[in-house]
Amino acid sequence: MRGKDKATALDLGAPATLEPDMQAYFAKCMEKLGFVPNVLQAYAFDNAKLRAFILMVDDLMLADSGLSKLEREMIAVAVSSVKHCHYCLTSHGSAVRQRAKNPEMGELIAQNYRAADLPPRQKAMLDFAVLLTEAPDKIEEADREELRSLGFTDRDIWDIAAVAAFYNMSNRLAAATDMKPNREYYYQMREQIDAETPIRATAHRMPSPAARSREQSSAKRRRPRAE
Amino acid sequence: MRGKDKATALDLGAPATLEPDMQAYFAKCMEKLGFVPNVLQAYAFDNAKLRAFILMVDDLMLADSGLSKLEREMIAVAVSSVKHCHYCLTSHGSAVRQRAKNPEMGELIAQNYRAADLPPRQKAMLDFAVLLTEAPDKIEEADREELRSLGFTDRDIWDIAAVAAFYNMSNRLAAATDMKPNREYYYQMREQIDAETPIRATAHRMPSPAARSREQSSAKRRRPRAE
Amino acid sequence: MRGKDKATALDLGAPATLEPDMQAYFAKCMEKLGFVPNVLQAYAFDNAKLRAFILMVDDLMLADSGLSKLEREMIAVAVSSVKHCHYCLTSHGSAVRQRAKNPEMGELIAQNYRAADLPPRQKAMLDFAVLLTEAPDKIEEADREELRSLGFTDRDIWDIAAVAAFYNMSNRLAAATDMKPNREYYYQMREQIDAETPIRATAHRMPSPAARSREQSSAKRRRPRAE
Amino acid sequence: MRGKDKATALDLGAPATLEPDMQAYFAKCMEKLGFVPNVLQAYAFDNAKLRAFILMVDDLMLADSGLSKLEREMIAVAVSSVKHCHYCLTSHGSAVRQRAKNPEMGELIAQNYRAADLPPRQKAMLDFAVLLTEAPDKIEEADREELRSLGFTDRDIWDIAAVAAFYNMSNRLAAATDMKPNREYYYQMREQIDAETPIRATAHRMPSPAARSREQSSAKRRRPRAE
Amino acid sequence: MRGKDKATALDLGAPATLEPDMQAYFAKCMEKLGFVPNVLQAYAFDNAKLRAFILMVDDLMLADSGLSKLEREMIAVAVSSVKHCHYCLTSHGSAVRQRAKNPEMGELIAQNYRAADLPPRQKAMLDFAVLLTEAPDKIEEADREELRSLGFTDRDIWDIAAVAAFYNMSNRLAAATDMKPNREYYYQMREQIDAETPIRATAHRMPSPAARSREQSSAKRRRPRAE
Amino acid sequence: MRGKDKATALDLGAPATLEPDMQAYFAKCMEKLGFVPNVLQAYAFDNAKLRAFILMVDDLMLADSGLSKLEREMIAVAVSSVKHCHYCLTSHGSAVRQRAKNPEMGELIAQNYRAADLPPRQKAMLDFAVLLTEAPDKIEEADREELRSLGFTDRDIWDIAAVAAFYNMSNRLAAATDMKPNREYYYQMREQIDAETPIRATAHRMPSPAARSREQSSAKRRRPRAE
Repeated sequence: MRGKDKATALDLGAPATLEPDMQAYFAKCMEKLGFVPNVLQAYAFDNAKLRAFILMVDDLMLADSGLSKLEREMIAVAVSSVKHCHYCLTSHGSAVRQRAKNPEMGELIAQNYRAADLPPRQKAMLDFAVLLTEAPDKIEEADREELRSLGFTDRDIWDIAAVAAFYNMSNRLAAATDMKPNREYYYQMREQIDAETPIRATAHRMPSPAARSREQSSAKRRRPRAE
Repeated sequence: MRGKDKATALDLGAPATLEPDMQAYFAKCMEKLGFVPNVLQAYAFDNAKLRAFILMVDDLMLADSGLSKLEREMIAVAVSSVKHCHYCLTSHGSAVRQRAKNPEMGELIAQNYRAADLPPRQKAMLDFAVLLTEAPDKIEEADREELRSLGFTDRDIWDIAAVAAFYNMSNRLAAATDMKPNREYYYQMREQIDAETPIRATAHRMPSPAARSREQSSAKRRRPRAE
Repeated sequence: MRGKDKATALDLGAPATLEPDMQAYFAKCMEKLGFVPNVLQAYAFDNAKLRAFILMVDDLMLADSGLSKLEREMIAVAVSSVKHCHYCLTSHGSAVRQRAKNPEMGELIAQNYRAADLPPRQKAMLDFAVLLTEAPDKIEEADREELRSLGFTDRDIWDIAAVAAFYNMSNRLAAATDMKPNREYYYQMREQIDAETPIRATAHRMPSPAARSREQSSAKRRRPRAE
Repeated sequence: MRGKDKATALDLGAPATLEPDMQAYFAKCMEKLGFVPNVLQAYAFDNAKLRAFILMVDDLMLADSGLSKLEREMIAVAVSSVKHCHYCLTSHGSAVRQRAKNPEMGELIAQNYRAADLPPRQKAMLDFAVLLTEAPDKIEEADREELRSLGFTDRDIWDIAAVAAFYNMSNRLAAATDMKPNREYYYQMREQIDAETPIRATAHRMPSPAARSREQSSAKRRRPRAE
Repeated sequence: MRGKDKATALDLGAPATLEPDMQAYFAKCMEKLGFVPNVLQAYAFDNAKLRAFILMVDDLMLADSGLSKLEREMIAVAVSSVKHCHYCLTSHGSAVRQRAKNPEMGELIAQNYRAADLPPRQKAMLDFAVLLTEAPDKIEEADREELRSLGFTDRDIWDIAAVAAFYNMSNRLAAATDMKPNREYYYQMREQIDAETPIRATAHRMPSPAARSREQSSAKRRRPRAE
Repeated sequence: MRGKDKATALDLGAPATLEPDMQAYFAKCMEKLGFVPNVLQAYAFDNAKLRAFILMVDDLMLADSGLSKLEREMIAVAVSSVKHCHYCLTSHGSAVRQRAKNPEMGELIAQNYRAADLPPRQKAMLDFAVLLTEAPDKIEEADREELRSLGFTDRDIWDIAAVAAFYNMSNRLAAATDMKPNREYYYQMREQIDAETPIRATAHRMPSPAARSREQSSAKRRRPRAE
């Protein structure tokens, strides 16, 4: 059985001596989170691998984007739910709870986003991310068109795809190495919210009335409905 | 229909003005390959995303590792075969043909690595990469033990996992954006090899006799065999 | 959109006038839990259906059994994880947290029981429950033998099967009706536990030394191991 | 090898002394069927489990419902076909043959209901039951709307869901225990019917002309058709 | 809706004028079976296609082989069960009932051959046929070795593969064209057999004691067993 | 390990003495191809099996049909891609390259036909062939109607089905026997084509303007589109 402080089931040798930028990054984690996420600890045996991972994940999750930071965390969690990734559901589930300021939303997305009462834009975003996870070979132009019809730009589509793709990667690295999440994640943002708080992710920006009417007619066209 | 020079089905705007390190990287591609791979063209709308991608892929595929460069390309191709990624099968299929100096090996891994006559070490490596692709939630300690029993160190296991995970990501980015490979890839290393050339990847290093005998008895124990 | 108090997406008419035994049961729920679980509210349109459901679930989860109550909740949650049942993961996830007195255990089983550090007996129990969920047509005598070899009696096997089968039913009733869990469940047993608490379900009873040694050799025989 | 009279592969000890209501139930089975179904024999080791099972199954299959008894048996059989449940296909296959007075209908539903020439209402009912069996996590409001558009009330939808869910349970209990059907089932209602008998389940009630026109236009809207 | 005499949902034009050998074949069907199987009626629009089909199916199912005719029908039915082929389950289900002189055996193989009490040789034969149907890309040398260890020669393995492969073809032709079986098949060999008749396919030939002991030890080695 | 000249992993004894028509057929292969395809070498242990195979494959791939020979090869390759058949992807991949006079088209269909820029008629043809391969039990009348709406006659539908079904068979015979393709196939039609050659299969016949307008409106109706 592995030692209780090990981030993974692999014995990767002593951590590397962190280079200054990496050292600073770890220090910032300690300052802001109170701990260094285990995925970073896992990568710490090699400065180059650690740096590449940090550059990529920070760009994807924190840089400017047409997707809100909450939406990007929702994608991370919905993707991680498909193949049951313990590490990512725990760490990014906490992130959804915190960014949505809503503990119930975190559970909903981690368990089954289809049970959440999401606006069509976010529902379509997660449908695309999950289809891309389950059957990337079956994605067709019509799937991109669906996103465009709900107001996503082509840059937004790139971002949805890039975030979903990234968690397909990190889910698998976590699974292959039996990566364990920091225990702090389990307890973050678990305070009960007011029963009247709508369980709904705040839309990242107000879609124009035109976009909104497109949304509605698109939803209607999608499947036949009896009145 | 998209313009014939576009790398993807998305309209991501004009390429960014490349920063000097990225400009140098593209120049090196032109010099060594005669073209800039379309995946880099696709990322070129944003210097930060492009740089993170290059740092990660070059570390994974070219840095020091217990896995040979050919073995890492074999993982890329076997993973890409699972969900039929056109971009990666074309570009990394070419890489396997070139690194193995064997056009037939490239086809074999791209079509079904189980039909290739691989040594047990490489067969197990690809079995792990494909299991990780198909059912990451079902990976258990026994799967890591199987790799160790064939002579892989824990650092090697990290590398197998990291490369397999990375192509789960890039397969999906390519699928989501309908990324097209540069046409040059189709034609690289297609010259007929001597009929006596064994269709077999060169083992990256000579396993010790002890490792070799472990291999054989492990293979034997795995499934019952009639004598 | 459904009214905020409705347990399901179906309009099943007014609740029936509860018959005295059912009325008493609801009163007991209010007294012990502070609420009536939504699954019972959903069934309350018909006394006969409600009674049959309560009789079955209480017998399965609370009657005498070779499986502890925690173990039965673990089966409920592991089964519900396979097809992402929001209602059951929320309500029975809470039950695992409470019965294990361990909030982390609840998350682990709900996300992927294979990532939990379970004793072989419980691991095999959940493996059987999940195989039965995913591929019941492929269960063979060898699967029952595996459970017997770890100390389960044939009555225990019946109970594992009956609980796993029951949650295959209630998962689907919840999915078909979009059943929503009571919001209280999200917040139960979320208090941080001591960092030294082992994340491990208490074994329901001490297996005899003989059983324990059988366990170990069985685990060993299951897959080839390096020394 | 198990004794020839055993209902399952498990050794559950001697049958319990049946309590009077259960004894009466078994007597009624003997009188009406000439045998006690093996599923009841299997449960007979415990009066409480037996009673809960009988209460639930009799309510589902025999109580008042907007679904005919034949339609409920069709759901049982279509669900049991998905994962190849020998016990349920044999016993409920016989029930479909008998209730439809049509031996061919029993085979059709047991083999592949899509090959039967069913009215749209029954086709949609079985499509929902099978989708709920295969992918409960992907059920959405549009699936319920489809049933409503074909004239099903919300209570009917509950009943479709409840019957389909129940056979997901009993299929798995049968599989886990290798339950064998009574041999009588194989031979019931095998007499050849007149070649002119339409292979079609009798509709349970006459849908109103309005409902019928909704059906047709819904079917038309469902998929594009060339004229 | 198609005319009641049409073998398929396709309108393939008038049947061709049968050439003499095909005419003779149809006459022989009428004489021996009392009808011409609908699959032949379906092919009758083209003499060349009809002849090729008949030559292949008769060679596979009736020519000399290490597999008995019953065993070949069992493969046909087990394969057809995987993807629920109505035509083949009905027609070849009847063939199993007749060749086994056992109506219950026909149902067992059509529903789930794993529930039949088959000798290890026949169980392995069907396991191979079904694995080949579900995951041909994952067949490995060890699967062929398993068959050899149970006494099958390499020619027998060819025959198992060829029959299983053929029904993967005809299942799909039947599905694509909605082929309907002749109604006579439903009623053939439905007479009740003596309760003492073992539900077991007659072994095609007596395996030598050596083969038998290999069988037993192979079965034992396959999965760990408690004593 | 098998001898280097063996077509399969099976030891099927010496080839039969070929009967005159078969001998002539092999001679013609030598003359036209320069080799006898290994699938024929594999069958050569038995004249009757060899003849039935040749009659069927030649009728399917070379006889008159509403499908061009290239289209039939495209079906063979798209089907073989689903389950990764090394033999068929290699041999029929070469056939697509040659018949399309386009090496890139061969790779595209072998890797993922959805990435090829095919006209709607050919896209629908391959969609049907692949659905028939993956889920034959779910084919419904609407799937045939879709083909008819794109101009396929019922005889064409038979041919699509028959070719797709046939490669479901031969894929499995190749997988079961580990059949190896002749090495010549790897190198055929690998010469670089002009960069301006459209990567597009030549349509087999000019659809009438009416058919073309049906195509477009059908494609539009199929999925909602934003303008």
